Amino acid sequence: MTHVTIIGTGNMGTAIAGVVTAGGNTVDLLGHAEINQPAAGQIVVLAVPYPAVTEVIAAQRDSLARKVVVDITNPLDFDTFDSLVVPPDGSAAAEIAAALPQSQVVKAFNTTFAATLNGRKVGSQPTTVLMAGDDADAKTLLGGVVEAGGLRAVDVGPLRRARELEAIGFLQIGLAAAEKVPWDGGFAVVS
Amino acid sequence: MTHVTIIGTGNMGTAIAGVVTAGGNTVDLLGHAEINQPAAGQIVVLAVPYPAVTEVIAAQRDSLARKVVVDITNPLDFDTFDSLVVPPDGSAAAEIAAALPQSQVVKAFNTTFAATLNGRKVGSQPTTVLMAGDDADAKTLLGGVVEAGGLRAVDVGPLRRARELEAIGFLQIGLAAAEKVPWDGGFAVVS
Repeated sequence: MTHVTIIGTGNMGTAIAGVVTAGGNTVDLLGHAEINQPAAGQIVVLAVPYPAVTEVIAAQRDSLARKVVVDITNPLDFDTFDSLVVPPDGSAAAEIAAALPQSQVVKAFNTTFAATLNGRKVGSQPTTVLMAGDDADAKTLLGGVVEAGGLRAVDVGPLRRARELEAIGFLQIGLAAAEKVPWDGGFAVVS
Repeated sequence: MTHVTIIGTGNMGTAIAGVVTAGGNTVDLLGHAEINQPAAGQIVVLAVPYPAVTEVIAAQRDSLARKVVVDITNPLDFDTFDSLVVPPDGSAAAEIAAALPQSQVVKAFNTTFAATLNGRKVGSQPTTVLMAGDDADAKTLLGGVVEAGGLRAVDVGPLRRARELEAIGFLQIGLAAAEKVPWDGGFAVVS
């Protein structure tokens, strides 16, 4: 059994918590008031918007060492929906990994809307969680939790592939905001 | 009726030709021997690998003026499958548009494998052609040809969104090359 701490109690945090518990694993959810409570999980999901990540890392730095830290962010410029706020050759995941050198950072869940986690489907296709990270064991652990919870997990490669995952997340959010795909649709992975 | 010239007679060129004619539009396919024959179509699809685009543009520059030019390339480093060969803040489409200032350049078909064009499906989902471009009329014309041929077309925004389309193409080819998705699968768009 894997224990997962989810920091952030919004749509994504609660949806991921539902996946974790559905698979027989355990979860604790930390809201903003608990931000200084050390994260207990082997896996810690940073389920907060990108601008809040810095504060979470500052509060949790010691407890995140030697943990699998999952970055789910889409670092969009939400004023324009026209760019990311990270450098073109970087990613939010790379920034988080640089800030947490003792953690195993995995990018995941940024290409799955909350509704597709809750419903386990994107249209008629099973929902697939794409994972990028440099630590194979970390991806295996997270992938196991995801698949136990009724989703598919696909390892897309090293953490530098987070750049492409963030491009997909950006495009998908833009399409949903423009009502060209529904918030329970978007990109499905046919494998 | 729209006349489409396709430069390139490989898997993608022939698959796109099949879509065009299925919709009642007309097509001529130019192979390497015909590279200096002026492209006659209102739409000209550059269905050649990225490294060959420069030669095609040099040969066809005059005949591409005032045409809709469709860039389908995925500018991967095919030695490593680990990066694109265009700058991180650029795209193949941006380079082509810069080289053809009198053309209306549309990025399209780089996220659809040939088999999903031929079969009209990605898994159980209809195949969707994602289009990025700065000229609305060009996208409308191309989208009409695509939809007449039995596919869906979605306008994802201006030509700068080609960066995200090329990221998707890159990731999808990498997943297929690693046998994590089949060449008749990959990313479906649920709209």
